Amino acid sequence: MVIEAVSPEIDGGRFPVKRVVGEKVVVEADIFADGHDLLAARLLFCKEGVSEWSEVPMKPLGNDRWQGAFRVEEVGIYLYTLQAWVDRFLSWRQGLSKKVLAGQEVSIDLWIGAEILEDLVPGASVEDAGKLKKWAKLLRSSGEETLRAETAMDEEVAAAAARCPERKWATDYERVLRVVVEPVQARCSTWYEMFPRSCAAKKGKPGTFRDCESLLPYVAGMGFDILYFPPIHPIGRSHRKGRNNNPKSNPGDVGSPWAIGAAEGGHKAVHPGLGTLEDFRRLVAKARQQGLEVALDIAFQCTPDHPYVKEHPEWFGRRPDGTIQYAENPPKKYEDIYPFDFATENWRELWEELKGVFFFWMDQGIRIFRVDNPHTKPFAFWEWLIGEVKEKDPSVIFLSEAFTRPRIMYRLAKVGFTQSYTYFAWRNTKWELEQYFTELTRSQVKEFFRPNVWPNTPDILTEYLQMGGRPAFMARLILAATLGASYGIYGPAFELCENQPREAGSEEYLNSEKYEVKNWDLDRPDSLKDLIARVNRIRRENPALQSDRNLRFHSVDNDQMICYSKNTDDLSNMILTVVNLDPHHRHAGWVDISLAEWELDPRQPYQVHDLLSGARYLWTGPRNYVELDPRSAPAQIFRIRRRVRTERDFDYFL
Amino acid sequence: MVIEAVSPEIDGGRFPVKRVVGEKVVVEADIFADGHDLLAARLLFCKEGVSEWSEVPMKPLGNDRWQGAFRVEEVGIYLYTLQAWVDRFLSWRQGLSKKVLAGQEVSIDLWIGAEILEDLVPGASVEDAGKLKKWAKLLRSSGEETLRAETAMDEEVAAAAARCPERKWATDYERVLRVVVEPVQARCSTWYEMFPRSCAAKKGKPGTFRDCESLLPYVAGMGFDILYFPPIHPIGRSHRKGRNNNPKSNPGDVGSPWAIGAAEGGHKAVHPGLGTLEDFRRLVAKARQQGLEVALDIAFQCTPDHPYVKEHPEWFGRRPDGTIQYAENPPKKYEDIYPFDFATENWRELWEELKGVFFFWMDQGIRIFRVDNPHTKPFAFWEWLIGEVKEKDPSVIFLSEAFTRPRIMYRLAKVGFTQSYTYFAWRNTKWELEQYFTELTRSQVKEFFRPNVWPNTPDILTEYLQMGGRPAFMARLILAATLGASYGIYGPAFELCENQPREAGSEEYLNSEKYEVKNWDLDRPDSLKDLIARVNRIRRENPALQSDRNLRFHSVDNDQMICYSKNTDDLSNMILTVVNLDPHHRHAGWVDISLAEWELDPRQPYQVHDLLSGARYLWTGPRNYVELDPRSAPAQIFRIRRRVRTERDFDYFL
Repeated sequence: MVIEAVSPEIDGGRFPVKRVVGEKVVVEADIFADGHDLLAARLLFCKEGVSEWSEVPMKPLGNDRWQGAFRVEEVGIYLYTLQAWVDRFLSWRQGLSKKVLAGQEVSIDLWIGAEILEDLVPGASVEDAGKLKKWAKLLRSSGEETLRAETAMDEEVAAAAARCPERKWATDYERVLRVVVEPVQARCSTWYEMFPRSCAAKKGKPGTFRDCESLLPYVAGMGFDILYFPPIHPIGRSHRKGRNNNPKSNPGDVGSPWAIGAAEGGHKAVHPGLGTLEDFRRLVAKARQQGLEVALDIAFQCTPDHPYVKEHPEWFGRRPDGTIQYAENPPKKYEDIYPFDFATENWRELWEELKGVFFFWMDQGIRIFRVDNPHTKPFAFWEWLIGEVKEKDPSVIFLSEAFTRPRIMYRLAKVGFTQSYTYFAWRNTKWELEQYFTELTRSQVKEFFRPNVWPNTPDILTEYLQMGGRPAFMARLILAATLGASYGIYGPAFELCENQPREAGSEEYLNSEKYEVKNWDLDRPDSLKDLIARVNRIRRENPALQSDRNLRFHSVDNDQMICYSKNTDDLSNMILTVVNLDPHHRHAGWVDISLAEWELDPRQPYQVHDLLSGARYLWTGPRNYVELDPRSAPAQIFRIRRRVRTERDFDYFL
Repeated sequence: MVIEAVSPEIDGGRFPVKRVVGEKVVVEADIFADGHDLLAARLLFCKEGVSEWSEVPMKPLGNDRWQGAFRVEEVGIYLYTLQAWVDRFLSWRQGLSKKVLAGQEVSIDLWIGAEILEDLVPGASVEDAGKLKKWAKLLRSSGEETLRAETAMDEEVAAAAARCPERKWATDYERVLRVVVEPVQARCSTWYEMFPRSCAAKKGKPGTFRDCESLLPYVAGMGFDILYFPPIHPIGRSHRKGRNNNPKSNPGDVGSPWAIGAAEGGHKAVHPGLGTLEDFRRLVAKARQQGLEVALDIAFQCTPDHPYVKEHPEWFGRRPDGTIQYAENPPKKYEDIYPFDFATENWRELWEELKGVFFFWMDQGIRIFRVDNPHTKPFAFWEWLIGEVKEKDPSVIFLSEAFTRPRIMYRLAKVGFTQSYTYFAWRNTKWELEQYFTELTRSQVKEFFRPNVWPNTPDILTEYLQMGGRPAFMARLILAATLGASYGIYGPAFELCENQPREAGSEEYLNSEKYEVKNWDLDRPDSLKDLIARVNRIRRENPALQSDRNLRFHSVDNDQMICYSKNTDDLSNMILTVVNLDPHHRHAGWVDISLAEWELDPRQPYQVHDLLSGARYLWTGPRNYVELDPRSAPAQIFRIRRRVRTERDFDYFL
């Protein structure tokens, strides 16, 4: 018996697949054997640590492909495997029924059937055992052959036989596979990145955690559920960078939050200017009251002033002249940053300490971490660390910031990162977006990699945003929010359409917030905050947008327009989004959808309701016209409403 | 360091890939690590049993994909695996060169370089060791920095460093993979199936091996290289089938050759009517002199008269009434056939005996076997048996006759069958043929499954042949011979266009040769023998047609016409075939090819030479017109000839 091509299965079971609480795991496999016997198969599953397997029968899909499914109900790790066997009873019954139909003599066959039923007795319940014995006796009896054959083919017999399958020759699948089950927020989350030091109400003054509290209604009001802070630790003074990344800083320059560590402390301390640890915990609690989880940035690197440098000089690389090796990307030198040497002789101590950093912030109430540059640390470190953290609290979420080559990005997801930044910011044409999101949502990648799409970050101001202005920000926001079940923006730079680069060709901001304190004018009339709030409300109200599994692209006969949809499995929620990708010109096109996929009646009109503008349109057939002006509304987010007939046959849409 | 997504690799290395002598194994893998260091990788390979690995460096293809290749020179088993490591020297040199270009101070870097070179000394040859030490000393010296840096970047240093890579931190790929290397005939073979008892020159008389000898020139003259006989053993008398598969036979009925075993002997005996074992050996030798290998049919099943039944009743299944279980496919009963019970308690003895059957015929000079219905015997049996046979003689070829579901067909190829019958006979439309041959030649299937395509067999007379008559036979012959590097026909029924079914809807022949002796009129004027000879000569003279790896379909704007090409890797031989699939009507269409793929100059005409008719055409550009009349020539087999400029620029084609 062969069980192969099991899906989902990542790298021969080396890595788990990912699900969130409440989701189904649909398992398929090729199952076959030599010969013509009928087979049966079951899917076995359990939560790790539970001693009993649950089971569910698998069903043949045709062409030797079988399917079964189970639901994961709790965070943690689930296990699953498969088993298949020859169903002797059904194989025999199939042959018998053909012979009876052909009017053949079947007395010996009935005798064989009796043997098969008797063989099932040892594995049967007391009640079934009695029945099986009774039927076997009847089959062996001298009663009228046709009557006996009819009894044998009764569904009651098949049902009893199915309850106690003879599995002594069963084949077990050679591997036990794993599912990591995470909170629902692992699949769907809406991130807002903000520098706490820019939160002060007064111009020129750096903000504190207390100041942040007063901004919580602003962020929550836009509909975000995660508030992510760049590192909040003391900032080094040696080689501190000045404004606009100037290698020399002036007195009063605040430095980059990613230059972690000073006399005041390192990765477990808070920057004194922001307040106390007490203040931080208070902020986290206040945020939670407004539906916001605070996410922290974990950047494993130190300034020369970090306490680790004195306490554990052996955790860092050394140059032949005895100095500590600073970070380099030749010819660039980052003398303000010392990377850890993860392969140091004392690696165990180092790794434990870094784990302690996560544990420390978990103890302060943090359960979402954005990890800076994980691709410059060993995969083995992350696999170990995420395992340790998840053992303490399986609901912790890790976002991987690995802007690097695709294989490495995917590997980090495989070793355990919950979500990952993507290439979304640089995918701006229709072809690029379709290709990329098809790879992310339709290939095996979907089993382990959860995209989190960001139109901007403090490091990324794309040419598209630089040149397209406000319409470009609107289009990219809507793309991010409707293509990705998880997305985020770096604000208030985003809603205020901050788009001046430091220099032509650069993706760095002019006067970047990374090196200075900002005081944003959040009430500017051109702010996109109302649009953002509307889009996030649409996301919250439409479950189709809360998952990436059903993303599907549709054709539009205009290369500047992109069209795609998401729907719930039961089709109770169907969202069709059309975006004009050209921030400069009005575009129009004919959109093609498949009516059959959505069970829409081709003979009746259906309603599409633009959730952005509130407008409703009656569409007919698979091909309909859309026109979009980037200045007013570069996109429409339609909810598709099926026509429901009433007794009076008034048009009514559900 | 990660080495993954290795190709070719079948089911995680569970099964070997297949090659023939002289072919290349091109190995690719994703190879990457955290961080930014430069990597190096090598492919290791050896013949099984050889203690030393050979190695070849792998080259990056971009996007973390690496490639290396080796050639297999002998039949047998080759092993391969991969190794990758950080190339410290090249990583360092890359950084140094960027720093030097940026005019930075590099004295410490030179010192680091010296350390790296010194670390290479222990693995270097005496000569290299001396050089490395000398360079290291120079790098550490107080000489002019720029000069020292220039020395370090000299290619001679890189070459020496590459000769003794520091592999103590190298990562070995976790698996050693296998290649089964078979004779060239495993990849390209031309089969002719013939019933020896129908070879008699005189009407009504059954033919003998001696009679067969006189037909060898006929078969060899058509260009075949394998002459395959249905079973040549004594035929049972119990329940012998009559003409047209009549359950009752009349005296004089000869029975089916697949009903093996009688008082005269079983699987190791020859039918007395055909001659002696001596005669058979003589025929095999005579055939070989004419370039024909004799292939035998191995059908593991017995008639009730087979000596095994008396000698080893325990090798067969038993019904509750004590009788031996005959073959059934309810409601059909095959009372003339007893299948072996491969799971009998005495399975070891049975399996050894069946192995002995192969060994016996190998001792008679046979090295090509066509195996009947292998899918009704356990996969484990075949994997074991083919392994045993190949250990005795790795050049033996097995053709699997498994007309069953695709997963099972593929599994038999994985467990060791050299070639396999396919669904070709039932793939008659353009869409079907394109889909099927794309799956066979472009997916991973090509690594383990070698198709052998047959337009007809003694069991398969398709509707297409029944209804299409002679033009259909011509079209199917050309499709088989140009789509498949291996193909075969069941003759003389094929060349004589035998197309009468036993009844409407049946694929059985009327008066099938399986149940009676035939006397074919080989000289009939409508015989396709000359066309067959021509097609087989084209196959022999054009190496492009001797492999399936480069098969590619091209578009024609007519669904009744199919177009495809094969070419050698070096483009010295390029064959483009166009076939009219409609046996009733003349069709024409525009054929599209890619000039760039064949390095054809778009500004110049090129010649296409129809090897069937001898006609030559000048084509220009990617789109050209073809018209085919099925009655005269349903196909054209073009050799593409590139234009070669001469000094005088006369048109001249190579």
